[in-house]
Formats: sequence, structure tokens, C-alpha cells
Amino acid sequence: MRILVCNDDGIYSPGIVALAEVAAEFGTVRIVAPNVEQSSMGHAITASRPLSYRTTPIGAFEAYRVNGTPADCVALGAHMWDKVNLVLSGCNLGLNLGNSIWHSGTLAAAKQAALLGIRGVAFSAPSGIEVFDAIKPWMRKALEVLIPQRELCLVNVNLPREPRGLIWTRVSVRLYDGVIVPTTDPLGRDLYWFSVKPLEGAEEGTDRWAVEQQWVSMTPLRLDLTDEAQLARCREQRPLDEQLAATVSPPKSSPEAAKKVAEEEAASPIGSRAT
Amino acid sequence: MRILVCNDDGIYSPGIVALAEVAAEFGTVRIVAPNVEQSSMGHAITASRPLSYRTTPIGAFEAYRVNGTPADCVALGAHMWDKVNLVLSGCNLGLNLGNSIWHSGTLAAAKQAALLGIRGVAFSAPSGIEVFDAIKPWMRKALEVLIPQRELCLVNVNLPREPRGLIWTRVSVRLYDGVIVPTTDPLGRDLYWFSVKPLEGAEEGTDRWAVEQQWVSMTPLRLDLTDEAQLARCREQRPLDEQLAATVSPPKSSPEAAKKVAEEEAASPIGSRAT
Amino acid sequence: MRILVCNDDGIYSPGIVALAEVAAEFGTVRIVAPNVEQSSMGHAITASRPLSYRTTPIGAFEAYRVNGTPADCVALGAHMWDKVNLVLSGCNLGLNLGNSIWHSGTLAAAKQAALLGIRGVAFSAPSGIEVFDAIKPWMRKALEVLIPQRELCLVNVNLPREPRGLIWTRVSVRLYDGVIVPTTDPLGRDLYWFSVKPLEGAEEGTDRWAVEQQWVSMTPLRLDLTDEAQLARCREQRPLDEQLAATVSPPKSSPEAAKKVAEEEAASPIGSRAT
Amino acid sequence: MRILVCNDDGIYSPGIVALAEVAAEFGTVRIVAPNVEQSSMGHAITASRPLSYRTTPIGAFEAYRVNGTPADCVALGAHMWDKVNLVLSGCNLGLNLGNSIWHSGTLAAAKQAALLGIRGVAFSAPSGIEVFDAIKPWMRKALEVLIPQRELCLVNVNLPREPRGLIWTRVSVRLYDGVIVPTTDPLGRDLYWFSVKPLEGAEEGTDRWAVEQQWVSMTPLRLDLTDEAQLARCREQRPLDEQLAATVSPPKSSPEAAKKVAEEEAASPIGSRAT
Repeated sequence: MRILVCNDDGIYSPGIVALAEVAAEFGTVRIVAPNVEQSSMGHAITASRPLSYRTTPIGAFEAYRVNGTPADCVALGAHMWDKVNLVLSGCNLGLNLGNSIWHSGTLAAAKQAALLGIRGVAFSAPSGIEVFDAIKPWMRKALEVLIPQRELCLVNVNLPREPRGLIWTRVSVRLYDGVIVPTTDPLGRDLYWFSVKPLEGAEEGTDRWAVEQQWVSMTPLRLDLTDEAQLARCREQRPLDEQLAATVSPPKSSPEAAKKVAEEEAASPIGSRAT
Repeated sequence: MRILVCNDDGIYSPGIVALAEVAAEFGTVRIVAPNVEQSSMGHAITASRPLSYRTTPIGAFEAYRVNGTPADCVALGAHMWDKVNLVLSGCNLGLNLGNSIWHSGTLAAAKQAALLGIRGVAFSAPSGIEVFDAIKPWMRKALEVLIPQRELCLVNVNLPREPRGLIWTRVSVRLYDGVIVPTTDPLGRDLYWFSVKPLEGAEEGTDRWAVEQQWVSMTPLRLDLTDEAQLARCREQRPLDEQLAATVSPPKSSPEAAKKVAEEEAASPIGSRAT
Repeated sequence: MRILVCNDDGIYSPGIVALAEVAAEFGTVRIVAPNVEQSSMGHAITASRPLSYRTTPIGAFEAYRVNGTPADCVALGAHMWDKVNLVLSGCNLGLNLGNSIWHSGTLAAAKQAALLGIRGVAFSAPSGIEVFDAIKPWMRKALEVLIPQRELCLVNVNLPREPRGLIWTRVSVRLYDGVIVPTTDPLGRDLYWFSVKPLEGAEEGTDRWAVEQQWVSMTPLRLDLTDEAQLARCREQRPLDEQLAATVSPPKSSPEAAKKVAEEEAASPIGSRAT
Repeated sequence: MRILVCNDDGIYSPGIVALAEVAAEFGTVRIVAPNVEQSSMGHAITASRPLSYRTTPIGAFEAYRVNGTPADCVALGAHMWDKVNLVLSGCNLGLNLGNSIWHSGTLAAAKQAALLGIRGVAFSAPSGIEVFDAIKPWMRKALEVLIPQRELCLVNVNLPREPRGLIWTRVSVRLYDGVIVPTTDPLGRDLYWFSVKPLEGAEEGTDRWAVEQQWVSMTPLRLDLTDEAQLARCREQRPLDEQLAATVSPPKSSPEAAKKVAEEEAASPIGSRAT
């Protein structure tokens, strides 16, 4: 099994070595990770400039650093290494729980794998951790559970400091910890930190509750953001031109129509087209 | 109604003025947007440095530019303006369809609103558009439909070049257009573009199909990434310590447990704690 | 006369319009400037990624924005417009005096012109200025003096708030205002601002003194950083292999030797060579 | 003797270890360097956000990485370590010769030292070098010559691949190798590389000629950019208000005048003043 290991703390983080060491028990490992910390980068990709891919000594591992985001690393890593079976991301120095996972570069690497049709698992641990000895057995246990579950395309794993066991969880979506905190620079000019605030305790069965209770949290995630319930409701209660569209438009678009839309999609605004 | 208008093409993009002009028909508008293009930034936030917030003349609108991402702009904009009712993002110069929405800064602004408990709507148009006269009536129609639907917290709207009508859609998740394209710099060194490839025609009812068929696509989105089906299956077929956890752990965590986890969450790695 | 106008505050700064308007009295003007503020960028160039060059409406001027540094803009602007006679940089919102000019992107644009064999003049004004009406006559006077002085390849002009006249000055090199100021982020982690400290009054004849006394300061600069006095002293008091080198090495290197060194020069570390 | 070692290739470059090892023969060494490559950054400083300063394991050295430019690292390093006697920068993987030194982050670190009143020496080696064994004896020889020359505040040292000896040189200012090279991205949009072109052979006595002839080049540099010859000529041939200024303005400005100008100097445009 080919296992691509990525992270968002940068290729020199101790967390990526710990994860790669555990991963090596399950298959052949290659590390492809950002050359510098990319925390809170979310699922950003780099479309406005080309990326580099450079050999870097990381223990005994075959390793490459990329001047891009975690998602860039996975896309480039999968391009450079045929038939990757699994992408592991982390182990992040900092938990990725609840609504915060939207900002997470660690999870973005696993999501990018899933977009490419490769299974992705993200691992996060408490931010104060410096030695991964106590965490590594639990990463191993998690992989022993996850790898045989072939239907699981995308999983977010969070490890507490002293795990008591593993549980399946859902995302804690009721709470959000982002907050703006004003400051000033030395010249007295106003500036604003995007920081975090304390949250109340989370509810049972969620990722946040699991870690608060010292359980390893494993959350199966999906890539489809469609709100099915709202979609059904809207189509019924506030129908628009769906019926007309079904009548006049073919059930599958032609290649020509697809090509035209492709040219109109969000492209990085790096210049006007040559033609 | 207070309407915060953001985008990811930067505050000087013509698309944001077009959207703000339409929005002004529905409420009081304030523009808070990035000072420079932030395309493909996904849901990145800026936690490693403080943000600035500076007055900028954009037509007759009250407008502020921020040296950050679209999500930063919404968080900061909502902090600076009490009781924002609606966040509109765009109008992006480039469609945001299917799996590409993961990378979209335009959508991230609307998602950030939803995280903060504010309704968010993202608008995207074909990338070649320079004049928004033909598009603006359809943005108006979309808002006329969406604003009364108070249950819709997050909607992704894509406008074709010559719309025939509006339809409710789901995300096209079968296709992904990201691709790596090798290049070299003038000194012959290898580099790699994260670019896009053409896709086949999309299936009926999806956002991509809608735009391919010249319908305005309106997709209700959710913020909960939990894969409910997989979660239920895993809990049944491969139960872990869920039962034990339900027995020994309280249904809601204590504030102390929550506080401890908050300190362990993903924080930007900008230095070691002072204490 | 073809006049390229650049700055480091970004193409949307009011200062660049003021300078372009004055420049238009002396020749044909084209604006090529960074798409975002680039203050304190010094003489940085962008060698690790390609640059874009995009039309931007700035009043009635032909204008292009570049996703790079002030020096990038001048290099690219001179490439796209044959036979540029003069590069003007500014008008910066903030004075550039004494040792601070090493960090100045405004001056770097003028220096880049000089490197390319084009005359360069940098203009800076007090940072609080919002209306340039009082400053513009003095920019005109400065250009009336400077343009006929064909031997002046590089000049740094600083304009006080209420000028009394123009004087030739030298750089104030005795004082430096850079200082580190500790701070913390909202999570209590240590961080450090690179800020400025007040200086004592400057000495007569220097750029700093001139502006302190409300004179427009015009400083002729050179591009040769060699310390001639120290070089002569070292060669005499601590001779090394100069004599041997003069004997065994030809007075001008061969093209082959030059080519070999060119390959060994500082190149951006974006990847290993393809061959 | 306290020796601060910095570079612009980033703290994980082999070149900085080689230089630190040689430096340790002359005094107590501390490494403070950028967390990521900063090539071609020139004398940029980071004034728009605070910097971090984090312990990093680099061999047996006390080492800190900074999320900033080479000049930032020297300013912050000198702030954190009292009474630094010498700043060494490098050893850069890439020569820094002639007019290219304006763009050099390696030299900027040494210049920043000089601005702070600390002696600074920059070391650069051919870009292809991977093992520094052959270079290190020559770095040692250079330091043995330079350290006793207390009048030398700023020196730029370039080491050829197989040195024959050391010579004092001047900067080769006749030639400049910057060039714009057009390219396109995968979507056919125009982009431009700021690259380098081959130069003809340099003239005797210059830094470029020295390295072309396989001599270690040691160039004493100055921080005063004033063009004395042009200043004298202008004052004589095109006198302005110098005489009036000398009459009506005091030979040294008052602290009040200095303070006022300080507030008007180039500050990073990160927000409007609080008052």
C-alpha cells in the first residue's frame, strides 16, 4: 500500500515524523509537505504561480517539500507518485474540532485526497504536545480500524492527551470559537486579531465532546455540501423553473456545453487570456 | 436590513460593485473586502498576524479593505458592524461549481457568515464577464427568492452568461477538475502548475448541469460535514467504545473540560506560550 | 519623453495619481505599479514565480498592475515599453530619509531603473497627507530642476508638508530609527514588532535636516556600494593576493568564465535544475 | 565575541550550518534565521505584522527561526542577545556579485547589522554546492583577515568553487543581469519571469572578475548612498536654496522638529492612526 503523508505545520514539524513512522507499519511511505507552516489555510490551493517539489532529508523517509498549501502538496504528491492508496495528514499540533475544521489545513489535505478519489485521514493532537510516544499507539489503533473500512473515504481523527479508547463521532456544529480581538501596533494604529474564544462544553457524541472526555474521536466526513433537506423543501415549497428545465434541457450536458462552462469557471486572476 | 458585501477578487473588482448595487435595493449595504485578489484561498483565515481595516472609496458605498482572506473580511466586518442580517459574497468573476467550491474564497465568505450565525449567499458569474448589466436583474431575482426563505442559511448561486430562469440544484460531486501541469522556469528548473482540466458534461439537477444549460443555479448548502450514513454504518458494523463512553462520560462536558480542550486546539504556530 | 510611473503604496494610492499628473506635463506617462501595498519591501525582486501584468483603470492614464514588488514593476514596465526615458516613483505616503532608504520600496523602484540604465527619481511626502494640491507644485519644480541634469541617474526627493524651497542634500547616515517592540497575541504568545523610534535632530545638509526645516530635499545617489576609502586602505595595509591575481589572471574574464559564474549566481531556490 | 549567524536561504539550509561551524572557532555563536527561503528579498523588513521567534534544533547550536526577512532576523536577533559583536550572513547557495547585490537578502542581513552599529559580513558560494568541506577553510581564512580589521563595518565575501587565494575587490557595477522572460500558464494567460541573463566577462579588480578567476572576493562596502561627486557638482552648477537654508535654518534640528518628521516617515500602511 502506498501511503502519502502530508501536514499543515510544515515538513519540519515533529508531528509528521510521528505519523510517518506509524504509517510505515502499514505500507510504503512518502512525505510531501509544505516548506513552511500553513495553519488555518483551509482548503486553499495555489493557482496563481507554479509550485516547486524539492527533496528534503526527513529521517530515513523519502520526503519532498512544496512551496504551497497542504492541498497543493496532496495534488502534487499524487501526481508524482502513481497509485497512491491512502493519504494521511498530520499529526497536527493542535486539535481540529467542530466548526474549526473549515479552517483546517490538516483536514484540507485529507479532503484533497478524497477529491482525487484517494482515501484521506486527518490526525490532530493537542497543541502542547512535544513527544508523540504516548500518542503513536493510538494512531496505530485508529489506522487498524480505519484501513479495513474501505467505504470510509474521509475521516477526521482527533487524539486527546491521554486517550481512554476510540469512538465514532459526528461534527460539533452548534459552537464556533472564532472571535475578533482589537489591538494596536506600536504606532497606535488599530489592528484586529482573528483569535479564538472559550466554548461551553460540547454535547454527547460529537468530536468535541469525545476529546473533552479523553476519547479518540473518529468522524466520517462527506464531500457533498448539498443540504438535502433544504433542497427538497425548497423544490416543494418554492418551486422555480425545475420542471421547465427538466423538459427543455437534456439529462446530461454535451461535451461542448461542459467545455464552455469550464472556460468560465473560477480561474486565478493572473492575467487576461492570450487569445 | 444590514447587508455586508464581501468577495474574493478584491475590493477593486467590478463584480463587487455590481452586487452591492443590487443589494442596496434590499437594505443598507457596507462593503468589507480583501485589498488584493484572494482567489482559490478556500476557507483560510489569518491567525498568525493582526488584520487592518481601512476606509476605501468604492462608488458611494461605505467600504473597507482588509489585508486578509474573504473569511477574515466577514469575521472582521461582522465585528465592526452590529447585527448584520445578511452576507453577500461576489459577484465572483468565475463560476464556482461542483467540487471546486472547496477551494472557493467566494463561498468561504458566505460560509464564514453561516459559522457566525448570519445568513450567507455567494454569487458567481462566468470569468470573461466585464459588464454586469445583463447579470444584475438575475441577481435581483435570486435575492427576491432567497431573502424570504429564512431557513436557508447558506446558498451558492451561479449565474450563466444568458440565464433562462432559476432552479434549485445540488452540488455536482462526481467530477473534479484539478490537475497538475509540469512546466519549467527560464533556468530549466522543474515546476508544477495546479491548473484545471475539462470535464465531461454534468448530470441533471446539479449546479454544473444548470449552468451548462444556462439556468441560474441556486444550491442550498450545509455546514455539517458529518457523513451520517457512514457514521450510522460504522457504529453498527464496527462498534468501538461508544457504549462505554456513553456510560462513563457525562452527556455534556463541563466548562473545565471545554476550557482545557480550547487550549489544545489548532492555534497558529506563531510562538510558544508566554507562560 | 516616455515616463514610467511606479510606487510602493500600490496602484490605488492617491500619491501615484498626483505624481502621474505632474509627470504628464513633461512627457507621455504610463503607470505600472504593484497591485497591493509593498511598503518596506526594499529592493526585493520576485524570482520564484512569474509575474502578471494587467490593465487597470487609473484616471485617464494607461495603467497596469503587477503582482510583485516595486522593482518588479519597473523591470516589467521597461520590458513592455521600449525606450523609457525616465522612471518616477511615488509619491510615497511617508518620507524616506536617512538610513531608512535601505528599506524603501519607493526608492527601490528608482534604483531598479538606474540598474537598467534609465534615470530614476523617487518622491516621498509626509505620511499624513491626503490631498496633494500643495505638494504638486513642488514636484513640478523638482522635475524642472532634475530633468535637465542628465548626469543625475538616481535622485531621492523628499517633500515636507509646507516647503520653503529646494536644496541639494546628502543622506543622513548617523541615525537609524529601526527598533524592536515586544507584544503578545491574544493567546499570550510572544511576538515582536519591527517598528520605529524617534531620532534626535539631524545635522545640516542632510536629507533629514532638510525636511525637518521644511525644505524639499533632493539627494543624488549612487549605485556603487564599494567603500573606496576602505578598499584603498585594505589593499595597502593588509595586502592579500592582489598582485598574484593581477599577474596570473587576465584583465578581462573570458566569456566561458563569465558563463560559468552566471550559473553559480544566486538563483531563487525553486527547484533543482532539470539537467 | 558574540557572533550572530543569519542567512536568506532559510534556517534549514546546509550553508548556515557550515558558516556557524566556522564561526564557532572565533566566538560564541547563535543562529537566528528565516523559517523559509527568502532569496531576492533585498533589504525588505516586515513592519505590517509582528514577528515570531522560535527555538529550532540546528545541530548543537542555539538557534531561532523567525517568520520574516533576513533583515528582520538580524534586528530581532540583536534585540534578543545583548552586545552582539559580529553578524555573519550565509553561506548563501548562490554568488552575490556586482549589481545583483541590491537584491540580495544575504547581504541585507549584513547591512542590517551595520545599520545597528554591528559589523556585518556576508558569505556566498556557488549555487550548485552541496558539501561545504572545500569551502570552509576559505571562510576561516576570510574571517582571520577580516575580524582584526576593525574599521571594516560591512564586507561582501564571495567564494569560488576552488579558490586560489583571497583578494580585495570593488563591486562590478557596469553589468546587470536582470531580464524579463515571457511565459504562459496552462490556460494560455501571459506571465513574465524576472530571470537572469548571461553577462560578458568582468573587468579586473571587481568582485565578479575575482570569482570568474577563482579568487575569493572580499569587497568593503559602505552604507552611505550619497553620490558625493554629483552632489558637489549640483551644488556648484545648479545651486538651489542651500545658501538661504544655511542662513535661516539652525545647523541641527530641534527635538520637536525631529519628532514631527518621525511621525511623517514611511510607516507601513496597516491602518489609520488611532487618534
